[in-house]
Amino acid sequence: MQFHHHGYVSTDPRIRPAAGIGLDRPEDLPDEMDVLIVGTGPAGMIAAAQLSMFPEVHTRIIERRPHRLQVGQADGIQARSVETFQAFGFAEELSCEAYHITEMAFWKPDTEHPEHIARAAQPVDDPQDVSEFPHLIVNQARILDHFGAFMERSPSRMRPDYGIEFLDLTVEDSGEHPVAVRVRHTSGPREGEERVIRAKYVLGADGARSRVRASIGRSLDGDQANHAWGVMDVLARTDFPDIRLKCAIQSHSGGSILLIPREGGHLFRMYVDLGEVTPERKARIRETTVEEIAQKANAILHPYTLQVRNVAWHSVYEVGHRLTDKFDDVDDGASGSHTPRVFIAGDACHTHSAKAGQGMNVSMQDGFNLGWKLGHVLSGRSPEDLLRTYSAERQVIAQNLIDFDREWSTMMAKRPEDFSDPSELEDFYVKTAEFPAGFMTQYEPSMVIGTDEHQGLAEGFPVGKRFKSSRVVRVCDTNPLHLGHQAEADGRWRIYAFADRPAAGQPSALTDWAQWMAESPDSPVVRCTPEGEDVDALVDVKVVYQQRHTEFEVTDAPRIFLPEVGPFRLLQYEKVFAVLDDEDIFEARGISREGAVVVVRPDQYVAQVLPLTDTSGLAEFFAQNTLDARMRERA
Amino acid sequence: MQFHHHGYVSTDPRIRPAAGIGLDRPEDLPDEMDVLIVGTGPAGMIAAAQLSMFPEVHTRIIERRPHRLQVGQADGIQARSVETFQAFGFAEELSCEAYHITEMAFWKPDTEHPEHIARAAQPVDDPQDVSEFPHLIVNQARILDHFGAFMERSPSRMRPDYGIEFLDLTVEDSGEHPVAVRVRHTSGPREGEERVIRAKYVLGADGARSRVRASIGRSLDGDQANHAWGVMDVLARTDFPDIRLKCAIQSHSGGSILLIPREGGHLFRMYVDLGEVTPERKARIRETTVEEIAQKANAILHPYTLQVRNVAWHSVYEVGHRLTDKFDDVDDGASGSHTPRVFIAGDACHTHSAKAGQGMNVSMQDGFNLGWKLGHVLSGRSPEDLLRTYSAERQVIAQNLIDFDREWSTMMAKRPEDFSDPSELEDFYVKTAEFPAGFMTQYEPSMVIGTDEHQGLAEGFPVGKRFKSSRVVRVCDTNPLHLGHQAEADGRWRIYAFADRPAAGQPSALTDWAQWMAESPDSPVVRCTPEGEDVDALVDVKVVYQQRHTEFEVTDAPRIFLPEVGPFRLLQYEKVFAVLDDEDIFEARGISREGAVVVVRPDQYVAQVLPLTDTSGLAEFFAQNTLDARMRERA
Ligand SMILES: Cc1cc2nc3c(=O)[nH]c(=O)nc-3n(C[C@H](O)[C@H](O)[C@H](O)COP(=O)(O)OP(=O)(O)OC[C@H]3O[C@@H](n4cnc5c(N)ncnc54)[C@H](O)[C@@H]3O)c2cc1C
Ligand SMILES: Cc1cc2nc3c(=O)[nH]c(=O)nc-3n(C[C@H](O)[C@H](O)[C@H](O)COP(=O)(O)OP(=O)(O)OC[C@H]3O[C@@H](n4cnc5c(N)ncnc54)[C@H](O)[C@@H]3O)c2cc1C
Repeated sequence: MQFHHHGYVSTDPRIRPAAGIGLDRPEDLPDEMDVLIVGTGPAGMIAAAQLSMFPEVHTRIIERRPHRLQVGQADGIQARSVETFQAFGFAEELSCEAYHITEMAFWKPDTEHPEHIARAAQPVDDPQDVSEFPHLIVNQARILDHFGAFMERSPSRMRPDYGIEFLDLTVEDSGEHPVAVRVRHTSGPREGEERVIRAKYVLGADGARSRVRASIGRSLDGDQANHAWGVMDVLARTDFPDIRLKCAIQSHSGGSILLIPREGGHLFRMYVDLGEVTPERKARIRETTVEEIAQKANAILHPYTLQVRNVAWHSVYEVGHRLTDKFDDVDDGASGSHTPRVFIAGDACHTHSAKAGQGMNVSMQDGFNLGWKLGHVLSGRSPEDLLRTYSAERQVIAQNLIDFDREWSTMMAKRPEDFSDPSELEDFYVKTAEFPAGFMTQYEPSMVIGTDEHQGLAEGFPVGKRFKSSRVVRVCDTNPLHLGHQAEADGRWRIYAFADRPAAGQPSALTDWAQWMAESPDSPVVRCTPEGEDVDALVDVKVVYQQRHTEFEVTDAPRIFLPEVGPFRLLQYEKVFAVLDDEDIFEARGISREGAVVVVRPDQYVAQVLPLTDTSGLAEFFAQNTLDARMRERA
Repeated sequence: MQFHHHGYVSTDPRIRPAAGIGLDRPEDLPDEMDVLIVGTGPAGMIAAAQLSMFPEVHTRIIERRPHRLQVGQADGIQARSVETFQAFGFAEELSCEAYHITEMAFWKPDTEHPEHIARAAQPVDDPQDVSEFPHLIVNQARILDHFGAFMERSPSRMRPDYGIEFLDLTVEDSGEHPVAVRVRHTSGPREGEERVIRAKYVLGADGARSRVRASIGRSLDGDQANHAWGVMDVLARTDFPDIRLKCAIQSHSGGSILLIPREGGHLFRMYVDLGEVTPERKARIRETTVEEIAQKANAILHPYTLQVRNVAWHSVYEVGHRLTDKFDDVDDGASGSHTPRVFIAGDACHTHSAKAGQGMNVSMQDGFNLGWKLGHVLSGRSPEDLLRTYSAERQVIAQNLIDFDREWSTMMAKRPEDFSDPSELEDFYVKTAEFPAGFMTQYEPSMVIGTDEHQGLAEGFPVGKRFKSSRVVRVCDTNPLHLGHQAEADGRWRIYAFADRPAAGQPSALTDWAQWMAESPDSPVVRCTPEGEDVDALVDVKVVYQQRHTEFEVTDAPRIFLPEVGPFRLLQYEKVFAVLDDEDIFEARGISREGAVVVVRPDQYVAQVLPLTDTSGLAEFFAQNTLDARMRERA
């Protein structure tokens, strides 16, 4: 965390200096804005949080409900999401309050007494160690709170506009704010009032019944019928020994439970399978009471019993596998015509079962993907075409998710006797762990993802996948730390220069690269950074040397890695790294001893791997997706 | 963190349900209270934070300043303090914002060019791994903020009363509130008004010039003269390569600097030695400007230069090695007469140089020591005699500290040529690391510290020293975690039962012990817990088995380890532990395979080690320091 360089910060250093719209942000929803986000679910809140770091962009986020979410909805936080929270500064705080999944138990009919359930297996949750972050369970409401706190501390001082419902929108052909949106105040002094507000861009993050989606003429397609689960968040007494463990429980009679222990040491959630929502059963299923859910749970848990003492929340959660074909308002054929103005994200685009615990997680990655792109376009850093990559990247991810989820759900719904192998279920769980954990996403080449031509220089940073952190030593203060954790969700591109063999201060390919970076008119830093801004304002350039930190001085590093920042023109010392004694990042991530340049997007995805000598490749990559600062100043 | 068991908690779970005085705590300082704390420095704030967990006790903390501390004073946070913060729930948050010391550099005159300084050594900061917590640097104001946040979230909803100055006090012989205190409002609507308020107990945590100390007729004795340092917290440009490293710098000319990098990546503090404050030099020294400090620093740093760009704070910090003979208002000879009513803590009792970075740390341990004792006496858990142990325990610690600090200061003041061995300074630093880190404290036997008769059963938990945590597995959720980190600063005693060989559910010494604990009228749990309160309300009893967690069921543990809690009578599952695969706590802490009982005080000090079979020893230990619940109910 860097602070004090604009002057002494006496209170919470996470509160950044207000800037731009944050200096006099209108309290009430104004008539015009740059971006309007509809819905304060995970997809909308992360997009808003990301945009709050662009104070030159006026973003508002409206919500029909008059207040924050209080209870219920999703609770599974995949490690990929926790990585994301790290960039938003609340991974630690959230980890402290959340339940941590370390192992998962599978219970099945006992082979000798099939009417009894028995523990069949208990695999560890992340056997492949795909992330340094944990797999957590915590109520969705708390995630939203943390994003809300981030926004409020951001330079934009953003806050959700509660009690405002989206009705519909039309996109006009021209004008600065071409999207006209009809909204209604659902609470507060203007309750009942309908207004038309105007935005440059609209994001519909308004859930499975999205009206934004309807307004742009898209629909969710897929399963004919929904599948239903009785869900309850309860406090209970039980003799079931694994009540504090995530469990998949299948009974002799075919019933099944997904047990999710929750934060705080006492509460847990149970999903009891209620089957397909056929037209005949629909009315009956929707009426399922919490008593009936508890009764079914007791039947499945036999010989154990469960006595519910307090119900925090319960619901019949009904959902099908459905997907929309495009996540914006421009049809594929029409792509030549205009760039998108309206986007949808999260449950508005894709729905799936609660079994793989994906809804909230995938929705956040949607919002994270779009957030920085809107920020870059609206702040003049990038061409509008960048916005086309959102649907292109995320729609295919949603398709993969739905395929995976269908497979997993089918498997969990199977009767024990129908498995070809008794451990089929847990084997599938372990084998595919990386998927639900959120690490299989790999974006295709585009204007923001390069090719894998030079992948061999850094095998451990696959182009298109998220940057998997590794440990290094920060030279200036000798702190061992995770390289990836130094990247905040501040909308900046990151370039990691892994040095060739010579140490800092010696002639090397790295030294030449650094000079080009600092001085060439083609360097993205030189070309994109507006006059008067810090050298690292838009692109954050860091270096990792092959030596140990005691073998050279931080001040020997080229000046692009020691930029002058802030009003006092202080040196920023925290961009120079060395290898640890016991863990060499060059080994851990398969980086060539000739060095490599790894370009990482603001949303943590590896965009390109290049040789240190290929400066023109680097210039070309950024030429596709970033504008000259001069163009920006003219605008 | 445990919550939800009183019903669903939708917002920050660190906010505990209000209780006692927290239900209708008077906004303004009332005329009567149980405890009055004077001064919101580290000593006062930790005592207040601890007492805020006793909502049946009405505690107020007054401060002369009209607002929180904003800048300056101490900044070194020893690992022992971070351990303490862990119990108050803010170690992680603070670690995120603080500077971490991993190594320290020693700079000396270059052997070839003595007018130049050169790096002579760079030892690691905690070579002995005395704690799992880091050594941090962060401004004192932030520590106070975190304690303030803890208090406000506590059941008492406590907040400091700013703008009220202590004038003097008198202790009367009788009455419920025998201490009459004269105060003056220094700000707010009552500014200028003098009042007399009454308390049962007063804690003077009002710093080196303590008026509370003067009121009870005690004084600080020691050095004739003060030693002075020019201190500045600044933002600067420099070519000195170790500007982000803690450094002791000695120049040829005999000048010396202690360089302390600070939180946020840019700010640093420099202490420049100004020498003894003799009567002749006094006036001159006190006038030292920040420009002069910077000039001296430049001279010492030669050939490097330093250009100060912004001054956050500066001061001439003047202090001597001084100590008061007793930390309360009862003279040793008079001990038979009455128990103490007035206490002093922190700088009010002991002052020392800034060199070893001890002031804030030791002061907090004073306040932590007294806080729970006052809480126990005032809530009727313990006899008043308990309060005598405060001065007895802490005065000797202060004496040791002053002796250490004198040695360290003398060494740092020596000219390079006067050292017998060129590495004498850094050798001393490394050899004695455990002392400044805060881990040498070992309390003598008393009513709250037992003897070391059975130390052999748990060599790694020395009686009288702080409980050094070790890792285990929590059986119910298979989470690997630190046993010690499960203990919050909630004022409870902790008993760790380390099992003998048999696993849970089998006959064993542990099983017998657990039954005695749950049922015997002599058991501290049975004897001390008032009717209607949870079994673990006053004494938290946990068990660690020798087996792995997969070798038994959590529900096999005796019921004292699975107590019913809260209004819904839920089982508390988080008290049963097993050993990790890769780190057996029995090995790591030298615990006998016959088992052992380790009693830990509310302030984390090991009070007693006993065999599982010595239940009468356990009963006797608690009989000295805790009252029967029945006596309490009668009161
Ligand atoms: C009742 C419910 C129960 C759920 N239970 C589970 C579960 O048990 N397990 C699980 O994994 N997932 C569950 N989910 C799904 C999970 O919460 C979602 O996958 C996840 O929240 C998707 O995030 P999102 O941001 O896309 O949409 P949401 O979280 O649905 O957020 C959409 C937001 O938009 C607001 N909104 C909707 N329409 C308008 C409008 N016209 N104007 C203004 N605001 C509007 C809504 O009030 C809501 O706050 C549940 C969802 C719901 C709604
Ligand atoms: C100006 C200053 C500079 C310091 N600089 C350093 C440093 O550079 N390095 C270092 O290691 N240590 C420094 N210290 C010492 C370090 O801050 C203390 O060791 C530490 O704060 C001790 O904590 P304490 O709670 O005992 O007392 P303090 O932190 O001194 O707190 C005492 C509090 O009591 C209040 N108070 C005093 N009198 C009254 C009264 N009559 N009525 C009501 N309130 C009153 C004060 O305003 C203050 O808030 C400094 C202390 C001071 C005062």
